[in-house]
Amino acid sequence: MIFRNRASSIKKSNNLSTDELTKTYGLNSYEFTQMDKEEIFVCSKYKNFDLIELDQLLQTVGWSRRPIRRVKRALEFSILVVGLWRHDSKFPRLVGFARCTGDGVLEATIWDVAINPVYQGLGLGKELMKYILKELKIIGISKVTLFADAEVVTFYKRQGWTLEPKGSKCAFWYAN
Amino acid sequence: MIFRNRASSIKKSNNLSTDELTKTYGLNSYEFTQMDKEEIFVCSKYKNFDLIELDQLLQTVGWSRRPIRRVKRALEFSILVVGLWRHDSKFPRLVGFARCTGDGVLEATIWDVAINPVYQGLGLGKELMKYILKELKIIGISKVTLFADAEVVTFYKRQGWTLEPKGSKCAFWYAN
Repeated sequence: MIFRNRASSIKKSNNLSTDELTKTYGLNSYEFTQMDKEEIFVCSKYKNFDLIELDQLLQTVGWSRRPIRRVKRALEFSILVVGLWRHDSKFPRLVGFARCTGDGVLEATIWDVAINPVYQGLGLGKELMKYILKELKIIGISKVTLFADAEVVTFYKRQGWTLEPKGSKCAFWYAN
Repeated sequence: MIFRNRASSIKKSNNLSTDELTKTYGLNSYEFTQMDKEEIFVCSKYKNFDLIELDQLLQTVGWSRRPIRRVKRALEFSILVVGLWRHDSKFPRLVGFARCTGDGVLEATIWDVAINPVYQGLGLGKELMKYILKELKIIGISKVTLFADAEVVTFYKRQGWTLEPKGSKCAFWYAN
């Protein structure tokens, strides 16, 4: 397993019944918890987002604001959109997010990976990425790419990502 | 203009009538030529590909072969697919290629940029990229990204691309 981390305190859990999990988060959701803790977290690719809540999450990680109407369209045209929720039977709270674009056949690119700072350092990002890679593998995609900000390069490296294979560099072009 | 290159011998041309250009290559095609040369080149986003010819082109640049059926699907799910043709009234020849994936709203990523080695060094790649960036701008995309192989990093840098902004690195993950 790519993301095995012996020090991780995260474990798959079954606190929710299959019915409750599916009803609240949709099919193929993934429930997990921290060892000896009560909080339950769920990765889901089907649960709808409140776009205001998503905007707030992205603000907490310090990203520049984007028009919500454009974000909505971008999500519609993404091939995989995943929310990471802190479970609550009435008000699940969005604490993590990531999405993928791509042709859905040869490659996918992961964008906008965000974990609410309050929940960083617990291993949630790792679980989120594991969930995404598993879902992409089910679709049949064998090459996944992303642009890692300087401060998370180590995070990805530790989890088995190859950085700059054969000296390749990421290049950005901004329209003016 | 991003790609201005004072030494370039490429110029926009109008050797083909608008009717002929549109009929052979579709709307919004871009015809150009080399100064003092007779060969005409055309960038087109609508002209259909012969997938065998595309496969051959990608072979000439030394890429590992991919199943044609998967390539066909990948093209269908790309948001922009561009061919660069050496014009011939009967048998236009595919000499360059690139495609984009993305959400079509916030970002696009360029893949599979290839110029037949016989035609490299003439400035065709530059024109191809210029055409793609223009088309993406029309759609309203303001951030374009790509993964530049080590040997073409300078090519993109020279054309105004920002490499590794804020120390970000490209990361690849291969399913096993």
